[in-house]
Amino acid sequence: MEPTDAHEACFEAGIKFGTLYHQFAGTPVSPDSAASLERAMVEAIENQPHCYDVSVDVLDDVLAAELAEQSADYAELTGRFMEVEIVVRYGEYEVVTSMAMDGDYPRMRIDSITER
Amino acid sequence: MEPTDAHEACFEAGIKFGTLYHQFAGTPVSPDSAASLERAMVEAIENQPHCYDVSVDVLDDVLAAELAEQSADYAELTGRFMEVEIVVRYGEYEVVTSMAMDGDYPRMRIDSITER
Amino acid sequence: MEPTDAHEACFEAGIKFGTLYHQFAGTPVSPDSAASLERAMVEAIENQPHCYDVSVDVLDDVLAAELAEQSADYAELTGRFMEVEIVVRYGEYEVVTSMAMDGDYPRMRIDSITER
Amino acid sequence: MEPTDAHEACFEAGIKFGTLYHQFAGTPVSPDSAASLERAMVEAIENQPHCYDVSVDVLDDVLAAELAEQSADYAELTGRFMEVEIVVRYGEYEVVTSMAMDGDYPRMRIDSITER
Repeated sequence: MEPTDAHEACFEAGIKFGTLYHQFAGTPVSPDSAASLERAMVEAIENQPHCYDVSVDVLDDVLAAELAEQSADYAELTGRFMEVEIVVRYGEYEVVTSMAMDGDYPRMRIDSITER
Repeated sequence: MEPTDAHEACFEAGIKFGTLYHQFAGTPVSPDSAASLERAMVEAIENQPHCYDVSVDVLDDVLAAELAEQSADYAELTGRFMEVEIVVRYGEYEVVTSMAMDGDYPRMRIDSITER
Repeated sequence: MEPTDAHEACFEAGIKFGTLYHQFAGTPVSPDSAASLERAMVEAIENQPHCYDVSVDVLDDVLAAELAEQSADYAELTGRFMEVEIVVRYGEYEVVTSMAMDGDYPRMRIDSITER
Repeated sequence: MEPTDAHEACFEAGIKFGTLYHQFAGTPVSPDSAASLERAMVEAIENQPHCYDVSVDVLDDVLAAELAEQSADYAELTGRFMEVEIVVRYGEYEVVTSMAMDGDYPRMRIDSITER
């Protein structure tokens, strides 16, 4: 079938998610540096085409719990430390996508596809 | 509208593309190391869910031309040095997606969506 | 010979430089997002052990000149778009290290080693 | 004090370690893809100046133990899944450096500095 604007919007949203995760995974992060990293991730990804809105929440309580268990006072950013929402607009369509833990796996999913 | 398997397949293909690009962009690469990097990129991305096939071609001639113009004998991997195809299967659908230069921009696109 | 605190300080400074460069190279960056990326880079690297001070300057004029030449309105972060200084303290020694373009190559160098 | 070749060698070795770790941390890895990733890491880092030898050992048993505990059949590469040795030669000096787990922290250290 011919890709529609809704298909393109889903593809673009996936690109943004893969970019966000794999550009920033591994970044040294602590409670003190979480806010600047959140902001940089949002603004970096919003540069990409068709990206309408990004929100990133570094989960301070999960991060603090991890740091309490380990010797270093920072961690490497990974999926269990953040929740992300990315909204893409492509032609007449808007897709809302998000990432959150699904058991032990950081699951990225399509939340909605709507015609604007 | 409710996301279909075709929408999910497009989203998953996008994730793989963003992952591949932003995990490996910046890697030091030379003609001698291009083959091992190609292979590692393919096998890394094929680990991800719903990923059916990945091919990566580091463009030896483009890389060699770049190296001839600069002082270092290696470059940082970026979009203009590679062509990539990623095939995702999700439910009954297969999407073929690819990346190649579109003028000066490494364009990722959906090539086909087919019911299997 | 046995590594001295000055050798360790140089090693640690190198680690911070490799981290900063290869964690963030490839990040989508524009004039509007440069400030948040600078801040995130500084705060991320300052988490690492023995790191006393980091400064990152995204070179707005170089970035703007690049964007004027290309079709996309953002670029991927790479060495020619930034100048960096990293100060490490290890035992009694402080090393100051920096990165700036040396012709077409982003050269990282030791600027000084001093006993505190 | 003026940096000696031994200091420069330590700085260069640190750069290679930071590069290796933060370029490749987060890469999807499984027992089947570990060998190609090891090889790509070695060949990528050996491109960098003054780098004489790199060896990377993805720890199959540690990786397998992790996968047995989780739902996904791959993991993201991080320090506890690998041991690395990097040898740098700068002028008359050779430094041997390595990374291995020190409790729960992937410790990078200078093993030896020798005049050649």
